Amino acid sequence: MGLDTPTKKPHDRLSEMLNHDMAGVNALIRERMASKHAPRIPEVTAHLVEAGGKRLRPMLTLASARLCGYDGPFHVHLAATVEFIHTATLLHDDVVDESSQRRGRPTANLLWDNKSSVLVGDYLFARAFQLMVEPGDLRVLDILSSAAATIAEGEVLQLTAAQNLKTTEEIYLQVVRGKTAALFSAATEVGGVIAGVDEDLVQALYTYGDALGIAFQIADDLLDYQGDANATGKNVGDDFRERKLTLPVIKAIAAADDTERAFWKRTIEKGDQRDGDLEQALALLNRHGALENTRDDALEWAETAKVAMRAMPTSEMRDVLVDLADFVVARLY
Amino acid sequence: MGLDTPTKKPHDRLSEMLNHDMAGVNALIRERMASKHAPRIPEVTAHLVEAGGKRLRPMLTLASARLCGYDGPFHVHLAATVEFIHTATLLHDDVVDESSQRRGRPTANLLWDNKSSVLVGDYLFARAFQLMVEPGDLRVLDILSSAAATIAEGEVLQLTAAQNLKTTEEIYLQVVRGKTAALFSAATEVGGVIAGVDEDLVQALYTYGDALGIAFQIADDLLDYQGDANATGKNVGDDFRERKLTLPVIKAIAAADDTERAFWKRTIEKGDQRDGDLEQALALLNRHGALENTRDDALEWAETAKVAMRAMPTSEMRDVLVDLADFVVARLY
Repeated sequence: MGLDTPTKKPHDRLSEMLNHDMAGVNALIRERMASKHAPRIPEVTAHLVEAGGKRLRPMLTLASARLCGYDGPFHVHLAATVEFIHTATLLHDDVVDESSQRRGRPTANLLWDNKSSVLVGDYLFARAFQLMVEPGDLRVLDILSSAAATIAEGEVLQLTAAQNLKTTEEIYLQVVRGKTAALFSAATEVGGVIAGVDEDLVQALYTYGDALGIAFQIADDLLDYQGDANATGKNVGDDFRERKLTLPVIKAIAAADDTERAFWKRTIEKGDQRDGDLEQALALLNRHGALENTRDDALEWAETAKVAMRAMPTSEMRDVLVDLADFVVARLY
Repeated sequence: MGLDTPTKKPHDRLSEMLNHDMAGVNALIRERMASKHAPRIPEVTAHLVEAGGKRLRPMLTLASARLCGYDGPFHVHLAATVEFIHTATLLHDDVVDESSQRRGRPTANLLWDNKSSVLVGDYLFARAFQLMVEPGDLRVLDILSSAAATIAEGEVLQLTAAQNLKTTEEIYLQVVRGKTAALFSAATEVGGVIAGVDEDLVQALYTYGDALGIAFQIADDLLDYQGDANATGKNVGDDFRERKLTLPVIKAIAAADDTERAFWKRTIEKGDQRDGDLEQALALLNRHGALENTRDDALEWAETAKVAMRAMPTSEMRDVLVDLADFVVARLY
C-alpha cells in the first residue's frame, strides 16, 4: 500500500468506533482499582493498566454487545471485568515466570515485589467478580467464572506439561485456551448474552472469540521460530531456549525418528543446549513441514473465526471483526 | 470438670450436629478440586484441604442456614465456596509470608513451588466463584465477592502497614477483617440470605460472624505475648521477632513516651533486636496496660457476637454458636 492510502489496522478501527464506550471502561477501571487505605493497589494496577496495552479484550466485549444491538450500560462493566481478569493474570504470570520485562517496561514484581503482585492480582480478581455481579445476569457470571477456572487450569497444565515430550496437540490446545482463547471467547460471548440475542448468535460469538484467540496464540508461537525480530519484539528461538513445547516442536517430535527424538530430549527435556542447536531445531522443523503445518492450523482457526462472525447481522462492526481475524494471521505470510 | 462429665468444645459439637451436611461439603470439595489434565491441582489442594483443619468457616455457613430453617441443597455449595476461598488465601499467604510450615506440616510452596501455590490458588478462587453462582442468588454473589475483595485488600494493607509505627487501631481492624472476619461474616450472612429470612436476622448473622472473627484474631494476637506455648503451638514473642504491629503493640506505642517510642522504632521499624528486647517489650506492654486493654477488646467483640446471636430464634444450634463466641476468648483467662 502507498503512503497516501494508509489502511488502518482492525484494532485501531475498533478503537475509534468504540471510543466513547472505552472512555467509560477506563473511568470504571480507575474507579474500581482504588483502595482507600492501601495505595499500593492502584499504584501496581496503574503500572500495568496504563502501560499502553491494546485493550483488545474489553474491546471484544464492547464490539460484541454493540454488534448485537445492546443499548444498556452493562457492557462497560463486563469489559472492565475482562480487563481486570486479564491484568490479574498478567501480574501472577510475571511472578510465575520470574519475568523482569513486559511491554518493554520493568514488571511489577521487579518494581515492587512478588508479594505485591500476588496480592494485588487477588484484589483485581475479586474486584472483577464484584463488577460482573452488577449486571445481575447469572449466565454472564457462569461464563466468566468458568473462563477464570480454564485460565488457571491452563497455567497449571503449562507448568506441569513443560519439558514433557509426551505433550500432545490436544494438551497444547488446552494450554492455549487457558493462556488466550478462554478470555477471548468469554469476552465475546458475554457481549451477546447481555444483549439477549438468540442462542445461535451467542454461540457464533463464542466460536469467533475462541478461534480468534487460538489463531492469535498459534501465530505467536510460530513467529517465535520464523518471525522478524524487529516486528515481533522477540528474538527467533526464544521459546526454544526457554524449552517451551509449542505447536511447531510438538509436530516435529510427533514425526521424529530415534536420532531426532534424542535431540529433542537433550535440548528440551534435559535443557542441555549447545552452539548450533537452534539451527538444528529449525532444520528439523522444516524437514517435517512442522512450521508449514503450524501455519495451516493458524489459518484454519482464523477461517473458523471468520465463518462464525459472518453468521452475525451485517454491519461495519462485523466487518472489522472479520478483518481482525485475518489480521492476526496476516503476519504469517 | 471431672473426667466423667467431659464438656465438648463448641466446634466439636457443631461438627457432630452438622455431620451429614459436612459430608456433602467434603464430597463437593473433592469433586470440584479435580482437574482432568492437571493432576497438580488436586494434589496441592488435597495437601491443604485434608490437613485436618477445623473447617470452622464452612460449618458457620451450614449452621447459619440450618438456624434459619433452610432445607434446600445450596448451603452445601456455599460452605464449599467459603472453604475454597479460605484454602486459596492460605496458599497465597504462604507464598507471601515465605512460610515453610502450616499446621505442623510443610507448606505447599515448600513441597512443590511458589508457582504451583499461586496458580492452584487462582484455580480455587475461580472454582469458588463457579460454585457460588450455582444457587442463583445475586445477593449471595455480592456478599462473597465483596468478602474476597476485603480479604485481598487487607493483605495488601498488612504488607504496606507492616513496620509502620503510625498504624492505627482502625487500620489494624481493617487488616483483621481482611485476615479473618470478612470471611467469617460472609460465611454466616450467606447462610441467612439463602434461607430467605428477614433482614434483621441476616444483619444479626453478619454481626455475629464479624465480631466472632475479630475476637478470634485479637485473642490470637494477644496470646502471642502471653500464651502458653504448649496450648497455642506458638512461641511467646513470635510476632515481636517478626516485627508485626498487632493490637497490644499499637496500644503500647500510642501511650509511649519518647524513650519508649525510640525502643519501638528500633525493634519494630528498623528490626534491630537484641537480647532482652522481648522482655523489655513485655514490660512496656504491661506498664501501659496494653495486654489488659487488648483482652478487654477481645471480650467486648465476643460479647457483641453473643448479643447478635441471641437475636436469633432459640435452638440448640444457636446455643452452640453463643458458646463458640465464649470459647474463642476463654483462652484469655
